[in-house]
Amino acid sequence: MKMKPEETVDFNIRSTWHKIARMYNIQAAEHGVSMATGMVLLNIDLKDGTPSTSLGPKMGMESRSLSRTLKNLEEEKVIYREADKHDKRKVRIFLTELGKEKREISKEKVIQFNEHLRNNLKSQDLETFFRIMEEINELIDENNIFLAQNGQ
Amino acid sequence: MKMKPEETVDFNIRSTWHKIARMYNIQAAEHGVSMATGMVLLNIDLKDGTPSTSLGPKMGMESRSLSRTLKNLEEEKVIYREADKHDKRKVRIFLTELGKEKREISKEKVIQFNEHLRNNLKSQDLETFFRIMEEINELIDENNIFLAQNGQ
Repeated sequence: MKMKPEETVDFNIRSTWHKIARMYNIQAAEHGVSMATGMVLLNIDLKDGTPSTSLGPKMGMESRSLSRTLKNLEEEKVIYREADKHDKRKVRIFLTELGKEKREISKEKVIQFNEHLRNNLKSQDLETFFRIMEEINELIDENNIFLAQNGQ
Repeated sequence: MKMKPEETVDFNIRSTWHKIARMYNIQAAEHGVSMATGMVLLNIDLKDGTPSTSLGPKMGMESRSLSRTLKNLEEEKVIYREADKHDKRKVRIFLTELGKEKREISKEKVIQFNEHLRNNLKSQDLETFFRIMEEINELIDENNIFLAQNGQ
């Protein structure tokens, strides 16, 4: 079977994600942050902070690359770590005042982008988009894509 | 305006891409390659090789991270560089025999994944998916998303 990259679901998702990332990075650079920074900040609760262990799954990031990112963010003084009040073995990540400012800017950019899409795409198409994405995720989670083929 | 991350287009694209990347990485590791390797190999023409300058745009990768990847691939002996026959100033990337083998494996995995999606998703939904992705790309390319807002 022949299949051009442009005809695959993964190529489309990957290249669109890279395009979005470049777009956000340009915006982020104007405010002295990177897109990766903005994404992490958005996932930290403004008031209660967020357990470091739940950030990775929330962002779909491997723990190794996440801890590197968190280390950078600490050096940039946008986050700090503190032991959890109820469970001293756990670490929570909190935003500094600077982090809160940068988070607000990131949030505005995300909203601007998504509102622009909602204003320019058919709402029915967008619903279909969200549903297909969910179905693709479910199919991957079933974890039998390559098993089935290998077993033939 | 409030917007949960799960309700944004970018969150869905990013997290789905990370999930696909993890899935491919597990498959790639079984064959001693990484997903990034597989992706590059798939973009190199089997017979004529591919100009190094056209790989970045084809893959949606920044030139800096691409040259790092190419350097690694050369060390893994899956690619080699050669001056273009017609224009000695240009460099083309070719696959070694090992590279061709790894490329074939990568190709099979991509086809297996996409066939599984096609067999399990409604074809009409998939058509809508490809169309929406194209529309999102076009909206980003228009390059007026943040301009419009800033100008208000």
